[in-house]
Amino acid sequence: MNLIEKLNWRYATKRMNGTKVPQEKVDNILEAVRLAPTSFGLQPFKVFVIESPELREKIFNEACQQPQIKEASQILVFAANKKVTAEQIDEYMQLTATTRAIPVESLNDFKAMFGGIVAGSADQNFVWTARQAYIAFGVGIVAAAIEGVDATPMEGFSTEALDKILGLAEQNLGSTTILTLGYRDEANDYLVNAAKVRKSKSSLFDFK
Amino acid sequence: MNLIEKLNWRYATKRMNGTKVPQEKVDNILEAVRLAPTSFGLQPFKVFVIESPELREKIFNEACQQPQIKEASQILVFAANKKVTAEQIDEYMQLTATTRAIPVESLNDFKAMFGGIVAGSADQNFVWTARQAYIAFGVGIVAAAIEGVDATPMEGFSTEALDKILGLAEQNLGSTTILTLGYRDEANDYLVNAAKVRKSKSSLFDFK
Repeated sequence: MNLIEKLNWRYATKRMNGTKVPQEKVDNILEAVRLAPTSFGLQPFKVFVIESPELREKIFNEACQQPQIKEASQILVFAANKKVTAEQIDEYMQLTATTRAIPVESLNDFKAMFGGIVAGSADQNFVWTARQAYIAFGVGIVAAAIEGVDATPMEGFSTEALDKILGLAEQNLGSTTILTLGYRDEANDYLVNAAKVRKSKSSLFDFK
Repeated sequence: MNLIEKLNWRYATKRMNGTKVPQEKVDNILEAVRLAPTSFGLQPFKVFVIESPELREKIFNEACQQPQIKEASQILVFAANKKVTAEQIDEYMQLTATTRAIPVESLNDFKAMFGGIVAGSADQNFVWTARQAYIAFGVGIVAAAIEGVDATPMEGFSTEALDKILGLAEQNLGSTTILTLGYRDEANDYLVNAAKVRKSKSSLFDFK
């Protein structure tokens, strides 16, 4: 496994061929997403793993009718918390205490660090929670490439409509991105042989 | 290389031992960051790769005096564009045309897709450009883990102060995150043996 080769192999697949991704590969990609780091470790988001044809039909119509929505094996919807709540922080403290076998009271200083976030507005919170979801999204993209699974990262959809389709507002969530998983349709994807466009090292990095 | 093992091995390193990361590993991590996907492929950010002790001293004082800032081999500062400009889109069209050996005029439909973004406010733009930087940040974290290099993802610093230290406003940039690269100081890092805290699969994912 050479990561650079895998990243050069991947591209934003525009057409997929309908082949199902083996469950073991899907599980590895999801496990990588689950292990992705986030600020304070809070993981303030949820990921919907969608195979249902009915749901995909609805999403397709709100996502510029991009064919991968239907042609993919699964589509992942990354949805971030709209508001960070005190209850959520309590749950996280409990999870940390249980995982590390320590008294939850020993985490009081850590818990206090969330005070400013919980006091923030939903708009401020969502800017931050969405960023955390994007870390996991990036990790998921790399994990798919390592598994030899094609993936399309997408922002081209109506977040309002997707939120309604999945009932996200009621779950304190807002959609941020979609990642389709599947296999490239080499015969029909105009991007399949296109050279990857990236800034040069000297224009992207500044060494000091 | 097993990605899941690597992701379980990594953690937000709190103390580093000062050992330099071999150049080849640094190069691979940066190349992964360069290859990270972004919306439309625009890469609306820059990454500062900092070794200078003087700069690190200044950053240390604006980053809650977190010791990794000085103990790391390098620190990477991810800075996103404050405003997406028409000139930037033109440059990107030119880069795409050159990379793919196609006439730049053939990209006019693609270019038109950026109209709404360029017309947006700097605040709106920065919400979006920062998210793109977070994808690359996530890819960089995974790349470091694969290279066996420890890394600390950080949001705990004054973005205003860091912007001033690096002169970012003048470059149409705003800081978003720091990633330190180095090696864990096993004797002094209280987190080195702590169990990783993550939501369960059933609470993070919703299968439909």
